[in-house]
Amino acid sequence: MKKRIVLALGGNALQKNGEATAEAQKKVAIKVGEVIASLSNKYEIIVAHGNGPQVGNILIHEESASTDKAPAMPLETAVAMSQGQIGYWLTQAINNAFAKQGRTAKVATVVSQVVVDRQDSAFKNPTKPIGQFYSEKEAKLLAKKNHWTVKEDAGRGWRRVVASPKPIDIVEKKAISELVKDGIIVIAAGGGGIPVVRTKILKRLKGIDAVIDKDFAAEKLAELVKADIFVSVTAVPNAFINYGLSNEEPIHTTTPNEISNLIKYGYFKPGSMLPKIEAAVTFAKKGGTGIITDIDNLKEALDGKAGTIIIS
Amino acid sequence: MKKRIVLALGGNALQKNGEATAEAQKKVAIKVGEVIASLSNKYEIIVAHGNGPQVGNILIHEESASTDKAPAMPLETAVAMSQGQIGYWLTQAINNAFAKQGRTAKVATVVSQVVVDRQDSAFKNPTKPIGQFYSEKEAKLLAKKNHWTVKEDAGRGWRRVVASPKPIDIVEKKAISELVKDGIIVIAAGGGGIPVVRTKILKRLKGIDAVIDKDFAAEKLAELVKADIFVSVTAVPNAFINYGLSNEEPIHTTTPNEISNLIKYGYFKPGSMLPKIEAAVTFAKKGGTGIITDIDNLKEALDGKAGTIIIS
Repeated sequence: MKKRIVLALGGNALQKNGEATAEAQKKVAIKVGEVIASLSNKYEIIVAHGNGPQVGNILIHEESASTDKAPAMPLETAVAMSQGQIGYWLTQAINNAFAKQGRTAKVATVVSQVVVDRQDSAFKNPTKPIGQFYSEKEAKLLAKKNHWTVKEDAGRGWRRVVASPKPIDIVEKKAISELVKDGIIVIAAGGGGIPVVRTKILKRLKGIDAVIDKDFAAEKLAELVKADIFVSVTAVPNAFINYGLSNEEPIHTTTPNEISNLIKYGYFKPGSMLPKIEAAVTFAKKGGTGIITDIDNLKEALDGKAGTIIIS
Repeated sequence: MKKRIVLALGGNALQKNGEATAEAQKKVAIKVGEVIASLSNKYEIIVAHGNGPQVGNILIHEESASTDKAPAMPLETAVAMSQGQIGYWLTQAINNAFAKQGRTAKVATVVSQVVVDRQDSAFKNPTKPIGQFYSEKEAKLLAKKNHWTVKEDAGRGWRRVVASPKPIDIVEKKAISELVKDGIIVIAAGGGGIPVVRTKILKRLKGIDAVIDKDFAAEKLAELVKADIFVSVTAVPNAFINYGLSNEEPIHTTTPNEISNLIKYGYFKPGSMLPKIEAAVTFAKKGGTGIITDIDNLKEALDGKAGTIIIS
């Protein structure tokens, strides 16, 4: 039986040197497609991906060219748009990697809503900057008009900030499970998912302006589809202690307890390596294997020979 | 056994009185969701939809706010974005219609690539206007820069025109079939699909700037997933002879031959009722039932009691 894996790909990974044209991003996707095709004989694969730079550009276009006749789409709908966009590029790259081998790929992107809790404490203190920069005056006007929270961003100007709540459920989990069971490679939970809340009484879904961490969303997906392995695919071959310093040390196989101690000592950068480690630890605590590695070492890491591997 | 139906919804249908905010379009989607939920006990359902006004607005935003750092997405990627956008709204509307009845919906949007033939004669004479209006000078400059074809549009200014080739295959057909077999309502082939061509030797997929008629794409999908019924859901309860004239006559049950004669007499408006009739005729000729009706009469039409029903 094939092992089931969920890969969480960084959204930045598709933009080499910040090249943001569709053409440039499709070129980067080719390699991702080839690695995934090469794994497909041995694994059932679900790919989740980030969307930071892509949804940022969508929002910049939507907001700066908004008119009454062609009004800007809100953040949650922009996330859905970025799922179509990136999902298409990845799907096509996988299709073409199979075609190169004379095979036909079975691959599909599922537009995914991820449920968050309206009471999540993240909504009380929005911290995630999104979209374009404004002057202080503009930012404060927009904040009033659109009920935004705005903050000064590291001396570069003012930006809107939104909450980054924890994912608690994935609406399309059954569809994703059925597809992967049917031998189809699935791209899902793009950009951490379209953030939605459930109303209390009728359990209706409602989009909410927030961004969900893609590693947390992918880990939740891995739990829900009963995956064996969760991999956060990032820019480095493994996590390090003292990353970037002269005494940096790679972390190979470890346990949730061991690495949780390193988290306590503050060894991992929030918003960067920390959420990847946290997601992998959560998955390992539930009995799976959590891995952090880069695309070049993915195959070796799945064989237990590279990457940071967290296992209970 | 449930009958399998493919519904082709107009993209204009989501914009009542031209109201183009996400909020307004989501409100219109509520009704669509409720009708689909009410049909789900009796039918396996696939929903295809148009995207004319939505992809138009995406292109306007992308192109008028394009910069080197945040470059505009090309038409084929914009179609993918509109599939995420509209697919999300429809998925959520169906989820919520089920929730209202205390049930859980199984529904998913699949990002869909539709294959066209690079040799399709439509590429020799692009006719479909898209995106914003330009002055003649601007239009001609952009045409030169981006290899566009531009045309004067009915006295309203100059616009880019693209080809509208016929759909010949749907890349994600297997995934869509598996999902619907597993009891999941599927939204697919949005906006007529992301237009792609297959390269000759390696059969690779490549996006191409074109727009595919959503009725033709939905009909092709109905063939590929072996649907029993194809319905073009439009703004009128049925097709008419002499539509809009004092002697207009509704068309009820008819045959492909009978209605093909009416097509020859020029009774149906190209770009409006004609493609819907042509799609329904094509489907009926292959042994299925082709229906043209509106959302209010959909249930009755499926029972054979309303709409224009074309059957061999």
